[in-house]
Amino acid sequence: MRIAIVGCGQLARMMALAGLPLGLQFSFVADDGGHGDTRCVDGLGIVAPWQPGQWIKLLYDQLGRPDVVTVEKEQVDLELLRELNTYCKVFPSVEAIAHCQRRDSEKKLLEKLKIPAAPYGYQQPLETSIEQLGYPVVVKSVDEGYDGKNQWLLHNDHDLQEFKQRGDDGVSGNYLVEAWIRFDKEVSLIAVRSSLGTIRHYPLTENNHSNGILIRSMAPAANIQPQMLKRARNYMDRLLEDMDYVGVLAMECFVSGESILVNELAPRVHNSGHWTQMGSITCQFENHLRAISGLPLGSTQSHGVSGMINLLGISEPPINAITGQSSLHWYNKAVRPGRKLGHINFLDTNRDQLEQQMNAFQNQG
Amino acid sequence: MRIAIVGCGQLARMMALAGLPLGLQFSFVADDGGHGDTRCVDGLGIVAPWQPGQWIKLLYDQLGRPDVVTVEKEQVDLELLRELNTYCKVFPSVEAIAHCQRRDSEKKLLEKLKIPAAPYGYQQPLETSIEQLGYPVVVKSVDEGYDGKNQWLLHNDHDLQEFKQRGDDGVSGNYLVEAWIRFDKEVSLIAVRSSLGTIRHYPLTENNHSNGILIRSMAPAANIQPQMLKRARNYMDRLLEDMDYVGVLAMECFVSGESILVNELAPRVHNSGHWTQMGSITCQFENHLRAISGLPLGSTQSHGVSGMINLLGISEPPINAITGQSSLHWYNKAVRPGRKLGHINFLDTNRDQLEQQMNAFQNQG
Repeated sequence: MRIAIVGCGQLARMMALAGLPLGLQFSFVADDGGHGDTRCVDGLGIVAPWQPGQWIKLLYDQLGRPDVVTVEKEQVDLELLRELNTYCKVFPSVEAIAHCQRRDSEKKLLEKLKIPAAPYGYQQPLETSIEQLGYPVVVKSVDEGYDGKNQWLLHNDHDLQEFKQRGDDGVSGNYLVEAWIRFDKEVSLIAVRSSLGTIRHYPLTENNHSNGILIRSMAPAANIQPQMLKRARNYMDRLLEDMDYVGVLAMECFVSGESILVNELAPRVHNSGHWTQMGSITCQFENHLRAISGLPLGSTQSHGVSGMINLLGISEPPINAITGQSSLHWYNKAVRPGRKLGHINFLDTNRDQLEQQMNAFQNQG
Repeated sequence: MRIAIVGCGQLARMMALAGLPLGLQFSFVADDGGHGDTRCVDGLGIVAPWQPGQWIKLLYDQLGRPDVVTVEKEQVDLELLRELNTYCKVFPSVEAIAHCQRRDSEKKLLEKLKIPAAPYGYQQPLETSIEQLGYPVVVKSVDEGYDGKNQWLLHNDHDLQEFKQRGDDGVSGNYLVEAWIRFDKEVSLIAVRSSLGTIRHYPLTENNHSNGILIRSMAPAANIQPQMLKRARNYMDRLLEDMDYVGVLAMECFVSGESILVNELAPRVHNSGHWTQMGSITCQFENHLRAISGLPLGSTQSHGVSGMINLLGISEPPINAITGQSSLHWYNKAVRPGRKLGHINFLDTNRDQLEQQMNAFQNQG
């Protein structure tokens, strides 16, 4: 069986490394015409460059006629997926990816399924939304949003004026305004659904971001009431079932007092699930592949308490920093400042020891 | 850092798959001049063909000037290793590999370290050894012995006559005669030693062979008294320290009543340690690489009870047979009858459930 992945980044790499032992073969669509960095997937399968307008049948052949196409990012050309879908399966479905690609359709899906999210205004003047929501607000481009890109926090009218005066930065100019949530913590839920409809959840993960980029995760998230976990799983199940979703879905949430609000969906394996490589019987990468290949899902049970620290913009793998209870995933990418180049996973028997381990690693840097 | 592995089989493949996430680079010596099947390591690094007489400096360059050379088998040209050792490190050392390569030197090492093994006769007429040991005996070629190859069980004088009359089968004709051990079970101990002398043991594994080929393993081995485990670990430590060993060493033993006898040593990652991929915090492949790269060893703690079943001579990966608690490693080799083509790992919380799982897999075949 051959899986084609749209994208050549670290998520594609880790899917391939998880899938090669299963006897799966891989190909990768370099959907920037092959002009980007494909070193992550070097040697792991066929790399086929593509850009809009190219003949899809030829791409399909170049990819080695895959059985299933999947994605490592939501910002993908839907037309490409639709056309590939005439030759083979696409999981998650094009519709599911479309839902998560734009903030407006994501919001509408959450509304339809009665899943709590931050209040927002859309398709009306910014000022109207701000009047309805009150400062502070977050202005978000409806598309091209990930890793905190293309969003702006406005505290007051001065910020609003500045925002309106900034030059064209290449985004569509199509904005959605969201109430700023004063959250206690950010958590994510990662789950996987098979083509037969079986769902397995990983534990809720607690995440720390800096400038919108994930810095570290710990799982299970601390101080979560069983009721809240139950609600989060229920939201996830509604989403998976409504979209007839196949594969891994990540749901990022804000915890604020007793409430949990869904902030963002990612129709793919997710950075906040990297700890599952060391901390779970089956990692998110293998489970995504099992789901889209029609195989039985693997257990999502944890081996203990887990953590993950992203390695940003460092030039060499910090291989000497690994310990008996931690391991490294290096992505083999070209080094650029602030770029995610690898991560370290940690495993321990309790939260305090885990935090000690993770702090020890961060302090030595 | 680049690691070169002599050999292009499944052990080389699994080392590479474990090491790529650590940011290690790999190359492989196809030491049959490149005439064999190298599909196991396709795409995972440089493959350089070599045969005796070739210029080693050229090989070293072709391998991308590795920092460390290691092996995936003991039947390797020691001269090749010695010459590579003039350019880079070789772990385990050439001397350690030499000790485990021939049954006579292995026996002498065990004798020197006062480690119990089956009584044997060597460098004397077969009849003299048989007289000393009594039937049944096992006649073993001193070299080229693995997977039960080149050994013969003789029950009586008739078997002896047949053995003496058989034609030249390409082995050296240099035999060692061993008393046949009526064992209760076969177990193996796998341990890893770092270049700083730190040792970590995996639990004792119980193995079932058929015609000398490993069929299935379970860990930890059942009904082992703490005293026996302690003795086995002590034998292992003596071996590792005496040889100043760096890397993973496998020690195969017979358990017979209260005694444990060492049967064979393998200076490498070992089939009976494949379960560590699913069942341990750090698998044997990653730990071997950590050891030979001068990194801290990973924890060898288990996640539960584990099992492994070898997949012999089947033409397709039995991917649909995997369950929530099992996973597959397929080696991507050319199919030949009886050849090891993959394995399935199992993980469970207790031995009974594990056996049920493993039997269910075997019965469905």
